[in-house]
Amino acid sequence: MGADRDDGRLLQPGDVIGILGGGQLGRMLALAAARLGFDVHIFTPEQKAPASRVAAASTIAAYDDLDAVRAFARRCDVITYEFENVPAATALAASEVAPLRPGARALDVAQDRLTEKRFLKEVGARTVSFCPVDGPQDMTDAAFVVLAGGAILKTRRMGYDGKGQARYAPGDDPAAAFAAIGEQPAILEALAPFRRELSIVAARSLNGDVAAFPLSENTHSDGILRTSLAPAQTDADTVEEAARIARSILESLDYVGVLAVELFQLEDGALLVNEIAPRVHNTGHWTMDACACCQFEQHVRAVAGWALGPSQAHSAAQMTNLIGEDVHRWRDWLARPGAVLHLYGKDEARPGRKMGHVNQLSALEG
Amino acid sequence: MGADRDDGRLLQPGDVIGILGGGQLGRMLALAAARLGFDVHIFTPEQKAPASRVAAASTIAAYDDLDAVRAFARRCDVITYEFENVPAATALAASEVAPLRPGARALDVAQDRLTEKRFLKEVGARTVSFCPVDGPQDMTDAAFVVLAGGAILKTRRMGYDGKGQARYAPGDDPAAAFAAIGEQPAILEALAPFRRELSIVAARSLNGDVAAFPLSENTHSDGILRTSLAPAQTDADTVEEAARIARSILESLDYVGVLAVELFQLEDGALLVNEIAPRVHNTGHWTMDACACCQFEQHVRAVAGWALGPSQAHSAAQMTNLIGEDVHRWRDWLARPGAVLHLYGKDEARPGRKMGHVNQLSALEG
Repeated sequence: MGADRDDGRLLQPGDVIGILGGGQLGRMLALAAARLGFDVHIFTPEQKAPASRVAAASTIAAYDDLDAVRAFARRCDVITYEFENVPAATALAASEVAPLRPGARALDVAQDRLTEKRFLKEVGARTVSFCPVDGPQDMTDAAFVVLAGGAILKTRRMGYDGKGQARYAPGDDPAAAFAAIGEQPAILEALAPFRRELSIVAARSLNGDVAAFPLSENTHSDGILRTSLAPAQTDADTVEEAARIARSILESLDYVGVLAVELFQLEDGALLVNEIAPRVHNTGHWTMDACACCQFEQHVRAVAGWALGPSQAHSAAQMTNLIGEDVHRWRDWLARPGAVLHLYGKDEARPGRKMGHVNQLSALEG
Repeated sequence: MGADRDDGRLLQPGDVIGILGGGQLGRMLALAAARLGFDVHIFTPEQKAPASRVAAASTIAAYDDLDAVRAFARRCDVITYEFENVPAATALAASEVAPLRPGARALDVAQDRLTEKRFLKEVGARTVSFCPVDGPQDMTDAAFVVLAGGAILKTRRMGYDGKGQARYAPGDDPAAAFAAIGEQPAILEALAPFRRELSIVAARSLNGDVAAFPLSENTHSDGILRTSLAPAQTDADTVEEAARIARSILESLDYVGVLAVELFQLEDGALLVNEIAPRVHNTGHWTMDACACCQFEQHVRAVAGWALGPSQAHSAAQMTNLIGEDVHRWRDWLARPGAVLHLYGKDEARPGRKMGHVNQLSALEG
């Protein structure tokens, strides 16, 4: 595990932060790191990646090119990542050369939906009912499918933005559902009768301090996040419970950096954890313009071994993702008072592709 | 003039903004441009310049290498600059290939203190009394030196941060003062009995819209800006007069981009213009964390041909420059609630060198 090898080093301004991944999250991390005086080195298989275009250096190589990973790591003072599907061998090779923050354990947990659900149970967080599925035979006995009125079959690994999923209801053909997700090791999850989706983005520093941003309330369509409203309208108990869940996850993973916890809130107010993301997260983008220290700066501070920044908001914000052709409306957003536009420098506005986002600011209530 | 050749083009996200100069102003412009989805190309004679480390491309060449300037310009959709001492031949070569915003006329005016003072008179802005000095003989007849109780002799060109200046009082040896500034063409300026230093940072768009940020009150020592407090405590008349001065300068120069006007406020409230800077400005750094659209985004919007953003503040801010060894206190600033740290990625903390700044935020009064 990378975390075990971490020598506890504190970075100085001018040191180099390595980032595995070159997408928009890496880009926004790089911009935040630059503001704090760091140089950034991006590792990505992509030519002209969004993050590379704002970084001091880039290594263009495949993630499984471990020689390239080691050469990259030798030029970094710390290494972090912008996506949870970093291959285990890549994480290991990097962490043998420079501290990997967050550590490899967070990747293990987040890469496999079954491992993740079992981990969440261990730390005392509630989830939907679930069972492992290695073939259609494992689905026929799942009593909770009948109880919940339906379920979702998901591949254990490599699913994101709604990919690798199939609905499954009582009476459906298990074999057809299993075929629909490519006949891979899977997990069957009961449908949650949730009232709304919330998330909490929280950080843990190298010395164990924890800070959580206000909750956001999120809407999705086609499996892709569309909007986040923050701080979410909610009672103090919910905020406290979400913070407790985030803290127990962070501490159990001996985590360093920012982590997001996606939550379902049921009609009775109870919180179920949907999934965790061991990285900065789309539902935390609102912090860029509504907090003095945003999630990207917070992550940079944490992985640098620095003290965490304040996590309260100075404004309320509605974050709207610009997906695919939405981005062509940039001129309308630019003219809207209180709207702050963020574009990711991606060439092609393909359907479903996250091209940018807007934070519409307003005064905090109360 | 570059401005005359401007074809009025509007940039699209993904286009390339060229910046002449690679210092911290270029760096912060590049970060703002990246947030709006632009690629940035830096032209600088310096290896590892602060701005190059966050840019998609850099050309490392001397400013008088006009072939390099033209090759750079061919890769840019618009060109701007981060310092007013861009050589005229460089500006001309660039502007023959791509729109130069602001145009060359702003450079002409800002590069020569005498031209600048005469320009300010033309647009109806008050200045201190002054006279041109080509040799010691021009100083002996300056009656205003006696009236003002002293004066400052300044080189007409290439002075910044208090360099190229000498005090001159009644009875002093004119030849010694002229020798102290290197016997260059100069201007003798009466001391202004000012109460305080203010500045206004304002922008003009390609279609002629003007927007001004709130005034800041500034303190200097050793000729270097130390702090800016904004919005400055002041009456409505002062705000209106400063905005009027800024607008007349911007319109008279057919200016596109952000421009700063340094002002002296006299005991009776009157405003004298000290100097203008045809660029983003240190006294506008407070806008980075106290406005939804900061001076860097505003400049990028203007030179891209986009609509200007809102220029009001959502918070008050005290900006403190981190000069030379001040930067070693970064850890203290980082721990201070409401303080937002900006470091420029410079290696050596030499005396007098601007290494970073901090914006200490507080709630707006009223």
